[in-house]
Amino acid sequence: MKIIRTVKEMQAASDTFRKAGKKIGFVPTMGYLHAGHLALVRKARGLADIVVASIFVNPIQFGPKEDLARYPRAFERDRALLEQELTDVLYFPDVAEMYPQGYSTYVEVKELEDHLCGLSRKGHFGGVATVVAKLFNAVKPHLAVFGQKDYQQLKIIQRMVKDLNMDLEIIGYPTVREEGGLAMSSRNAYLNADEREKALLIQASMKKVEELFRGGERKARVLEGEARRVLTSKDGIDIEYVTLCDPETFHGLEEVGASALLAIAAKVGKTRLIDNTVLTEP
Amino acid sequence: MKIIRTVKEMQAASDTFRKAGKKIGFVPTMGYLHAGHLALVRKARGLADIVVASIFVNPIQFGPKEDLARYPRAFERDRALLEQELTDVLYFPDVAEMYPQGYSTYVEVKELEDHLCGLSRKGHFGGVATVVAKLFNAVKPHLAVFGQKDYQQLKIIQRMVKDLNMDLEIIGYPTVREEGGLAMSSRNAYLNADEREKALLIQASMKKVEELFRGGERKARVLEGEARRVLTSKDGIDIEYVTLCDPETFHGLEEVGASALLAIAAKVGKTRLIDNTVLTEP
Repeated sequence: MKIIRTVKEMQAASDTFRKAGKKIGFVPTMGYLHAGHLALVRKARGLADIVVASIFVNPIQFGPKEDLARYPRAFERDRALLEQELTDVLYFPDVAEMYPQGYSTYVEVKELEDHLCGLSRKGHFGGVATVVAKLFNAVKPHLAVFGQKDYQQLKIIQRMVKDLNMDLEIIGYPTVREEGGLAMSSRNAYLNADEREKALLIQASMKKVEELFRGGERKARVLEGEARRVLTSKDGIDIEYVTLCDPETFHGLEEVGASALLAIAAKVGKTRLIDNTVLTEP
Repeated sequence: MKIIRTVKEMQAASDTFRKAGKKIGFVPTMGYLHAGHLALVRKARGLADIVVASIFVNPIQFGPKEDLARYPRAFERDRALLEQELTDVLYFPDVAEMYPQGYSTYVEVKELEDHLCGLSRKGHFGGVATVVAKLFNAVKPHLAVFGQKDYQQLKIIQRMVKDLNMDLEIIGYPTVREEGGLAMSSRNAYLNADEREKALLIQASMKKVEELFRGGERKARVLEGEARRVLTSKDGIDIEYVTLCDPETFHGLEEVGASALLAIAAKVGKTRLIDNTVLTEP
């Protein structure tokens, strides 16, 4: 596995792959890799000739009160894991390479930002769109794989790619879960045993809603209410939102039609967790 | 000359050129071509194997009170002119192709927008950066040529390309002038004979400042004052700004150092004209 740290070298490597007719698959990450990330790498491995993964903890997608400084990092372990998955290139730029003095360009996906996580995390998705645009231009992939756990992020990136005529395919990959059902996240590392137990209520609340939906319930108020009831059945979960919305526009729904996104964000202790499921009529 | 109207076809054509090892030079325009545009095309012709020119009057760079509806258009004449200059591809998308239903992604170059024309034309440079990013992703050029008449635009695009790691070279080309010195602009078509005469004061004011600068004057207040004096020596010119500033950051100057941008925007009748010159110590 080759490790590349500069834009210029990354572009030169990708130009060489492309000239040789190789298909490049890309998995951008913030590192501290877990089985969810590795599933994305395997997906890319199956679809492309060359797999590039990136590790970059992107400062501009963190708010001033968020966990940038304490975001978990484990480069040597990440490198070994990516090597095991037969990754061809690890792109690992530093902050000065990504945002040099005088940096001032930002990408925003306006319609899709002002919902769900975008409401509490002002500027977050602008930071995500910007760094992903930069990474795409450095890596020049034919396809990139993103996890559906970050559903709003996935839709925003798909929209950006379509709107800006970026010539690559974005592939969403189903959420990978720990035993017990907790969605894999680097931030799960913050949870103690008690919090981890409580965090299981997130998936339990989604299961409950799915069950009611299968049973014919279509009122968003009722379904959201049930999810809230499950989430607050123990102390220690602080709900940020429980929302049933259109899976494409994120506009809120009163009645669930053919499909709806159930999205949840909640704090367990000091750790903010998100999860989601798409309800679809059978 | 091939005329292409969709992103998909444009990308496919550029992929074919690139696979054949051809260097692609690009000149984006809003049409109603004049000798200034044609000089850019010739510059691209000299530097690249394949020349692509685009014509697209970009609605999102016009303010609500600006001249989008009456912006001059002359497709057949433009086509003939580009053919004479041995342009290989004319990319001519329509508004629905560029901004389909649901469009929501915008690029902004924040530091450089809040100066000069950006102050009166809110959102203008965001619209320019966005459309140029889209055109670059459709045309996939190795280089693109922009006129220095739109100096702030040129700097914003250079900054965007650097910041977003777009892999192409941006080339600035000196302002082409009519006999008498008026900078070539599609908007000159709006001027009647009397206004055209008055518009010559813009270049006269720049010449005056250059002369004083050569004579040793370095105080921005004095130099700007002289330019204003020349511009207002006849009735009918409404100055928007006359500014001496840093040519890279557009920050205002009190003293001119090794170099400075003199930038002018003024209305002659209803027509807004801009021009500029860079003062450089010999």
